Amino acid sequence: MKDMKNVDIIRIRGDRTIEEKDMVIVEYPFTIFVNDEELITLLCSPSSLKYLAIGFIFSEGLIDSYSDIGDIRIDEKQGIAYIYADRLNKLSEEFRRKRTITSGCGKGTIFYNVVDSFKSRRIENPIPVKIAKIKELVKEFSRRSELFLNTGGTHSCALCDNDEIIIFKEDIGRHNALDKVFGEALLEGVDTQDKIVLSSGRISSEMLIKAAKRQVPIVVSRAAPTSLSVEIAEKLGITLIGFARGERMNLYTNFGFRK
Amino acid sequence: MKDMKNVDIIRIRGDRTIEEKDMVIVEYPFTIFVNDEELITLLCSPSSLKYLAIGFIFSEGLIDSYSDIGDIRIDEKQGIAYIYADRLNKLSEEFRRKRTITSGCGKGTIFYNVVDSFKSRRIENPIPVKIAKIKELVKEFSRRSELFLNTGGTHSCALCDNDEIIIFKEDIGRHNALDKVFGEALLEGVDTQDKIVLSSGRISSEMLIKAAKRQVPIVVSRAAPTSLSVEIAEKLGITLIGFARGERMNLYTNFGFRK
Repeated sequence: MKDMKNVDIIRIRGDRTIEEKDMVIVEYPFTIFVNDEELITLLCSPSSLKYLAIGFIFSEGLIDSYSDIGDIRIDEKQGIAYIYADRLNKLSEEFRRKRTITSGCGKGTIFYNVVDSFKSRRIENPIPVKIAKIKELVKEFSRRSELFLNTGGTHSCALCDNDEIIIFKEDIGRHNALDKVFGEALLEGVDTQDKIVLSSGRISSEMLIKAAKRQVPIVVSRAAPTSLSVEIAEKLGITLIGFARGERMNLYTNFGFRK
Repeated sequence: MKDMKNVDIIRIRGDRTIEEKDMVIVEYPFTIFVNDEELITLLCSPSSLKYLAIGFIFSEGLIDSYSDIGDIRIDEKQGIAYIYADRLNKLSEEFRRKRTITSGCGKGTIFYNVVDSFKSRRIENPIPVKIAKIKELVKEFSRRSELFLNTGGTHSCALCDNDEIIIFKEDIGRHNALDKVFGEALLEGVDTQDKIVLSSGRISSEMLIKAAKRQVPIVVSRAAPTSLSVEIAEKLGITLIGFARGERMNLYTNFGFRK
């Protein structure tokens, strides 16, 4: 399914009015069922749906690894994922119930319990990365955000090693893009403990906690972090970099980074 | 409570490394109780909390007007709103239950039932507005987005009449900013049927449906619309304008607009 759609628009440029075709980003309702129980409907870009489904249920704490999943089937036309998991995290089911109760939703966010986040293991062995390398990765990351260039409507997210971008995903939502990245990493058995996450979007507490759950030691964004994400990064030993653009960046937390 | 917080950062500019203070946007957990039942925890900017709480429960369909609310109390320190509503929308309670079941949350979004949206009354009497006026309003809107200029982390939203900005709000979330605007409009008895909504953020289906529920005939964004928001705007008779910046804008739908 296509990520973009043609629409007729009226383009206004100063005093000129031009009728023409333009592309808008597709917003696609995608419902995830786990063991025949309806879990959530996400609004997303219709690509990498299998990765999104896996990444999402991992981020929600329903599974601990890809091997917990028995079967997964994507009905792209209907916009449905059917996941069958042999082992579902009991504790997480309780969390999920609690979250579900605390949320009327329709909203941008639900609070990932902060206690929950601090239970994430602190990163003890930060990986050595040079600033110059981050600059290179950010430049490559920007170059690849082509969908954004076409429609101005998506966020990008990437997983990198010390050398290059390994996984790159785009979505209308920051969270979806990150879940797609982690979904592919889980499915392909890519270790994330020695990797770097790049995001085009703001780093809120939820984004940071998603990365923490995957034990990612370095999180880099082209945009701003929030106060809560800086606090959590400090507590968990995650190096948090914001406003990474070209030759510039801000280090909000710094664990063993080299100049 | 302050919307921004000082943090120590390391600023990298080319080869220079500068240790200094910087401001980050505060991310504030805010829990809404309705008739002593916990509804949701929003992550938001800690301003206009009363408006946010009212706007949110209206957007969720729990109330039809401000007069449905008996009492509202904000505990800013604890981050809690206690709302007591004499009349709660029964139908909406069912909707809410349904939504809650369909959502594990932790996510950017929950799907506002499209059927629900198309039940929103179609706008039959579009208000006449000139392109030149929209350009003026957008310029003023950008000028006022000061918090964004300081931290790069917030979205702005405004309600305008044919002449000027009446209500202006900022938040880390697009949805929160719009709910704050509508919350104030509800509380202050501002009619929204002849007004214009301006947003700094992307117009997703959820944003458009929020505006449709308040019968707003014109929605303008500095950013992109999604395919679903264009479709819904077409069906509901809402004029949807995207990429409104300076002398430029794109009309994705157009109902009775004048050059």
